[in-house]
Amino acid sequence: MVAYELSVVQMRVGPDKADNLERAEHLVREAARGAELVVLPELFNTSYQVDDWPSVAEPVPDGPTCGWLSRLARSLGIHLAGGSVAELHEGRVYNTATLWGPDGQLLLAHRKVHLFDVDVPGELTFSESSFMAAGDSVSVVQTALGGIGLAVCFDVRFPELFRCMALRGAELVVLPAAFNTTTGPAHWEVTLRCRAVENGLYLAACSPAPDPEVDYPAWGHSMVVDPWATVLATTERDESVVRAVFERERLVQVRQALGLLRARRPEVYAEWGRVRTGTPG
Amino acid sequence: MVAYELSVVQMRVGPDKADNLERAEHLVREAARGAELVVLPELFNTSYQVDDWPSVAEPVPDGPTCGWLSRLARSLGIHLAGGSVAELHEGRVYNTATLWGPDGQLLLAHRKVHLFDVDVPGELTFSESSFMAAGDSVSVVQTALGGIGLAVCFDVRFPELFRCMALRGAELVVLPAAFNTTTGPAHWEVTLRCRAVENGLYLAACSPAPDPEVDYPAWGHSMVVDPWATVLATTERDESVVRAVFERERLVQVRQALGLLRARRPEVYAEWGRVRTGTPG
Repeated sequence: MVAYELSVVQMRVGPDKADNLERAEHLVREAARGAELVVLPELFNTSYQVDDWPSVAEPVPDGPTCGWLSRLARSLGIHLAGGSVAELHEGRVYNTATLWGPDGQLLLAHRKVHLFDVDVPGELTFSESSFMAAGDSVSVVQTALGGIGLAVCFDVRFPELFRCMALRGAELVVLPAAFNTTTGPAHWEVTLRCRAVENGLYLAACSPAPDPEVDYPAWGHSMVVDPWATVLATTERDESVVRAVFERERLVQVRQALGLLRARRPEVYAEWGRVRTGTPG
Repeated sequence: MVAYELSVVQMRVGPDKADNLERAEHLVREAARGAELVVLPELFNTSYQVDDWPSVAEPVPDGPTCGWLSRLARSLGIHLAGGSVAELHEGRVYNTATLWGPDGQLLLAHRKVHLFDVDVPGELTFSESSFMAAGDSVSVVQTALGGIGLAVCFDVRFPELFRCMALRGAELVVLPAAFNTTTGPAHWEVTLRCRAVENGLYLAACSPAPDPEVDYPAWGHSMVVDPWATVLATTERDESVVRAVFERERLVQVRQALGLLRARRPEVYAEWGRVRTGTPG
């Protein structure tokens, strides 16, 4: 499609699944007015309930939340990026993003590849890999809206994954994510903008708004960035809908202007898959 | 070294080589007070004289500018990053950065890997590959100040090169560069900050100040960024010296906290060296 509007739904995500789906439905219906694509945040149906995955995780695409996403996409006739959900698969739990077509079909699923293991002493300690398993795919699909890639939160820290998505044809990457009040102010916007311009693609990043019943201080600041690193639309931390327009001509123009994908020198980077550093980290 | 001061010399670079060396010497001597490392900008001795390379390009390390850099480093007892020079080698011209030790020895040379071929219609058109040849190395050396990498200007657009430098042990990357008033405001700071945090390293980026006799509208805004993406020091477009402190403990702390180098998933990115996109750019 030459141009279309997309809406990013920065919804409050609480601990109760039924409440979350009810709030999401209300907000998605509002966000869908005039939009071809609506985006939900990371773990939008359950929040991050590490102690209780067996009771909240679901199969993908055969669980109740996926059924709900499929029906909602079909009833509104939109593409719906279903944020991410805790996916239960063969006894393991994944942090899985999905994309649904206007006919209710699952177009793409992406299991978070890079788990969030962070230790900022005194501020923030989190070991996602203690609770979840990691995916191992670069996830891109060609849709009626163009090439769309999916990644989840910490994945955005890794330029390798985004480069692979661009090389596979992603023109827009949808990123359900929940940075926090430590890493958010320092790294959220700068990382999103750099990923967009270095790959010549649009980025739609969707955070939950913080919820009084949930401990995690989500940074919010959902945003849509264009291929020139311009923030087309953003918000602060409250619940809100962020709207922007994808223009394929703009993407083609920036890619032609900067020529980054054609100027790559893969033969120079050959070692990157092998070499490990001696420095900690 | 545990901690040291570095100075980034944002000097005006005009068309006359003798004038440039004279101004550089004055500024480097001033910048070296209290500093262990001094950094000069891209093509600091000649500016960008595409029509006249045969008369201004020199061998590296046996040309007169390199001899001058070596003597200056030794006489001040500092590490000196000699910006870049137009290097003449076997009939070709390269855009080559150098690093000199306090004994006057050449520690590292890096030929710009990614040539600046940009076409923003009506604003900026430039085809560096019409005038220069490209290098093909990832350039890192272990020094008394720690692991130092070199890259030149457009190289910073490519996360692959910076990742390879980090994996080879770079703790500081020195980037002589000359963004301009089109790409500078849009991409300079965001790209530098992202490269620093995604690799957990310091970045010292040195631009020339614009010169009235040179056509190119250099963006200036030389800066030093720490591994948390914090801009430690910067300036605007006028001639000036930017000073900051490298602290190895800070680097180790950030790398431990974010864990990005250890969380990489090279097996997932295997395709990056092979696949090409069908989309223009």
